Amino acid sequence: MQPKQAPWILRAHCYSKLGTVDAVTGFLKSSGNYITELHSFDDRLASRFFIRAEFRPEQGFDEAAFRAGFAERAATFEMEWDLTPPGHKTKVVILVSKYDHCLNDLLYRYRTGQLNIEIPAIISNHPDLQALADWHGIPYYHFPITAETKLQQEEQIWQVIQQSEAELVVLARYMQVLSPVMCQRLDGWAINIHHSLLPGFKGARPYHQAYEKGVKLVGATAHYVNNALDEGPIITQSVQAVDHAHYPEDLVAKGQDTECLTLAKAVAFHIERRVFLHGNRTVVFPR
Amino acid sequence: MQPKQAPWILRAHCYSKLGTVDAVTGFLKSSGNYITELHSFDDRLASRFFIRAEFRPEQGFDEAAFRAGFAERAATFEMEWDLTPPGHKTKVVILVSKYDHCLNDLLYRYRTGQLNIEIPAIISNHPDLQALADWHGIPYYHFPITAETKLQQEEQIWQVIQQSEAELVVLARYMQVLSPVMCQRLDGWAINIHHSLLPGFKGARPYHQAYEKGVKLVGATAHYVNNALDEGPIITQSVQAVDHAHYPEDLVAKGQDTECLTLAKAVAFHIERRVFLHGNRTVVFPR
Amino acid sequence: MQPKQAPWILRAHCYSKLGTVDAVTGFLKSSGNYITELHSFDDRLASRFFIRAEFRPEQGFDEAAFRAGFAERAATFEMEWDLTPPGHKTKVVILVSKYDHCLNDLLYRYRTGQLNIEIPAIISNHPDLQALADWHGIPYYHFPITAETKLQQEEQIWQVIQQSEAELVVLARYMQVLSPVMCQRLDGWAINIHHSLLPGFKGARPYHQAYEKGVKLVGATAHYVNNALDEGPIITQSVQAVDHAHYPEDLVAKGQDTECLTLAKAVAFHIERRVFLHGNRTVVFPR
Amino acid sequence: MQPKQAPWILRAHCYSKLGTVDAVTGFLKSSGNYITELHSFDDRLASRFFIRAEFRPEQGFDEAAFRAGFAERAATFEMEWDLTPPGHKTKVVILVSKYDHCLNDLLYRYRTGQLNIEIPAIISNHPDLQALADWHGIPYYHFPITAETKLQQEEQIWQVIQQSEAELVVLARYMQVLSPVMCQRLDGWAINIHHSLLPGFKGARPYHQAYEKGVKLVGATAHYVNNALDEGPIITQSVQAVDHAHYPEDLVAKGQDTECLTLAKAVAFHIERRVFLHGNRTVVFPR
Repeated sequence: MQPKQAPWILRAHCYSKLGTVDAVTGFLKSSGNYITELHSFDDRLASRFFIRAEFRPEQGFDEAAFRAGFAERAATFEMEWDLTPPGHKTKVVILVSKYDHCLNDLLYRYRTGQLNIEIPAIISNHPDLQALADWHGIPYYHFPITAETKLQQEEQIWQVIQQSEAELVVLARYMQVLSPVMCQRLDGWAINIHHSLLPGFKGARPYHQAYEKGVKLVGATAHYVNNALDEGPIITQSVQAVDHAHYPEDLVAKGQDTECLTLAKAVAFHIERRVFLHGNRTVVFPR
Repeated sequence: MQPKQAPWILRAHCYSKLGTVDAVTGFLKSSGNYITELHSFDDRLASRFFIRAEFRPEQGFDEAAFRAGFAERAATFEMEWDLTPPGHKTKVVILVSKYDHCLNDLLYRYRTGQLNIEIPAIISNHPDLQALADWHGIPYYHFPITAETKLQQEEQIWQVIQQSEAELVVLARYMQVLSPVMCQRLDGWAINIHHSLLPGFKGARPYHQAYEKGVKLVGATAHYVNNALDEGPIITQSVQAVDHAHYPEDLVAKGQDTECLTLAKAVAFHIERRVFLHGNRTVVFPR
Repeated sequence: MQPKQAPWILRAHCYSKLGTVDAVTGFLKSSGNYITELHSFDDRLASRFFIRAEFRPEQGFDEAAFRAGFAERAATFEMEWDLTPPGHKTKVVILVSKYDHCLNDLLYRYRTGQLNIEIPAIISNHPDLQALADWHGIPYYHFPITAETKLQQEEQIWQVIQQSEAELVVLARYMQVLSPVMCQRLDGWAINIHHSLLPGFKGARPYHQAYEKGVKLVGATAHYVNNALDEGPIITQSVQAVDHAHYPEDLVAKGQDTECLTLAKAVAFHIERRVFLHGNRTVVFPR
Repeated sequence: MQPKQAPWILRAHCYSKLGTVDAVTGFLKSSGNYITELHSFDDRLASRFFIRAEFRPEQGFDEAAFRAGFAERAATFEMEWDLTPPGHKTKVVILVSKYDHCLNDLLYRYRTGQLNIEIPAIISNHPDLQALADWHGIPYYHFPITAETKLQQEEQIWQVIQQSEAELVVLARYMQVLSPVMCQRLDGWAINIHHSLLPGFKGARPYHQAYEKGVKLVGATAHYVNNALDEGPIITQSVQAVDHAHYPEDLVAKGQDTECLTLAKAVAFHIERRVFLHGNRTVVFPR
């Protein structure tokens, strides 16, 4: 029986071609690394190959040599790839407004180690959630915003993101529409939670829209930010049943749990390197 | 301990006003009827009251006298109401095209008595499902349709519906868009199953639309027909998780179970008199 | 359109007999109270009747007169009943050990008003969760326990419960088995969360038991405490899918969300007076 | 873009050891086969490795040569393995008693090709379901059973199973307890559906047991037959919510859909070679 041990993670994707799997698995074997979990998927319609391997070295591990060796193989297939060390803590900057349910949930998972992350900064256009950040010992940046100061405010945000060397940005109910420039900067590495089952009920007040339509299910969608409002590639979605007795304010209240769980799940998928982004779609190898 | 026994069902709805519940419950008591299940709901935003009672007579039951007596009370509140005898078998006409999964499912529930219905007719624009109807001993009407004959074909359908004294029409994946006249005729007493989570992915090939968007959940919506395509009041909705490995044809195949269950559930709600229709919304008192 | 307004809640249960519904609804009408939501259920096998009404006074409300008037009616049917004022904050004492996920979840819902409760005391056999209590401004009682001091420790707990005039006790992963005396005292008004789908996997380490059996679903059960270990009447249960790749420690981690949601739901049902206890079963009129 | 095409499936499992993945993937590459989907899992606690690959030959495919070549590699690791040709129709013998819901569901999926199977025989201890079998053109064997004739009856069943060269036996609510001899014969290649969430409510009338306990969820479990009643390795489980208004007969009726779906899912997993059996646990690589 092997002791429990965080794995190394190697991922790659490229054009479909004979030998792609072997390029990864053969290299892992020849470099003395034991694969503990492996998933690959070939997208027939896109002719694109995706692979993710968890492994542990049988003996020592020379990261530089591994990278150099694998880079050579990967080049043959024009693979995009990344390697993540065991227990790597992803640096996550969180943006919020006034609603605290998603932030509270993420902070709990951060504090208990359930999400293996560091949070160098929480940024908000309101001062309200300072106390919550303080209690967790996390720097809180209050950057107010008006229609006139939007671009400057985004520059402030962008500086904090850069200075903190964030690897992931999470919009945990940040109620501002980002400018095209900001969307461009965050394209593919920022996760937003939208409180509807996209593509249904885009934009503002989706629970009120849902009430008007008389739907019997409401949901939440975690997706990557791109340059189209609430149109970015979907990572995960969840849903819950509602009925005629739920007024809009009830949907708002009841939807919070679903939003929290959906966002936390997407963040977990991302930091565990389970999500591949390709065009407007994601490939997610779940736990 | 009372023996098992199908109940009488009394339903009513009207403008919100003090005394509406008592108009129903007081009458049931004074006429010697024991209430075994009762639900009422007051829609605060619409100022509308809905009530549904299941009851059994303590001794005999004089239906005419009951109706006359209750009509008087109901008139005071301008109630719309209906009374359904124990074990009433609702007459249901089913429309289909070529897909047989929903039909097969409904026929199974009909055959085993799980749905307490009669099926005087199955109508289709294709001959394909004749054998299935035959095996269940149900008349099958094949009315082909072309762009030119659409209105005549609908007349044929309408005649069968009328002659069979249908109380409910079910569109069990009937792949034709009904004309405004036909929608008008069926308004509020025909149930359609649409293979998406409305209002997302209206119209044709919703699973293909869903694939293009890269959604992680697909679903089905059972709704009443009205004069707007895929816009009628929703009765119930269901959902299932999918992932990147589901091509459009996989969504089509996998969605069938959800469609069947969603439609069967809506039909059960309807025939058990659990659904109230008010404007574009439904009130459903579920089991 | 009526403005939003918290309702009064009247509940009763008694032996099945003609007129029970009318005793409640007739009284509400004659005392000028408008029923906004009503549910009744007659348990055929137990010959027992349960009713719950939400209402608002049309004009003023004289609570003493209402109670006196209804008591008279209720006596005729030997009803057990209770009346709850709008917005009543239930006093809840929480017992914990070291695990903080359920406590953290309850405190969040308390802090944001999602659960309309007061928490006069958090009691633990460990000092670990003091800081969390402090941040929420709630008195924390640390009563260590050993095999020898169990009964004295329970006396300490009991005194706090009594002094705080608790209406509900919640065992939010309190890892001690209560003595028969304590169970007796809390019978019917303490809610425990057990981390399995009872009656499967009673007792210690249910996730490890679940792993050994190779189950594909794990769950949580919120139930009232009675004098049999993990055998009290069930209020609500939830479940989540797992697979072969979940080791026992993964089940423990993954199960936390389900435990939190299940317990919070049960507490909400209880404080909204939706749960009736009868023998070893509950009647729950859900939202 | 590749056209849609049923894949070859290669599976293997063996003791954990460096090179197991490569033994499979390296061979597939060197023999000119493109992997379209791949999953492997290493069970840390059992030190056991499992792999499943879907692949398509880039050019021709010589099955005998493939088998010979792979057998050699596999022998090095003492792998147990199997190879399944594209579109292979698994021969399934179904055992039933009087309940027809699971049979009806399986036959629908068989008839429409949703389950890629042949059904050489349906066997029952009752004559009731003959007509259903006839309509699908499947031989129906009625072998009555009494306490005295149990072993002879099982011999009759066994002969049909053998003569039809069944690869899988499905107990679709076959209400007889199999003898130890029969369990032994079917060990690991017969799937039973039990109408509870095992290990809860083993044995007879599980819905009645569930009612007595007042549970709020009921479910179904599909598992392999082994020599312990309702104790075989679990393949998949499903669940549905119920409440106080569900009498035992309601649970029986409502549970049917869950039983059907759970059994059909397990059969699909099995025939798509997604289930590995190891000791009392299964590894299932789901779609």
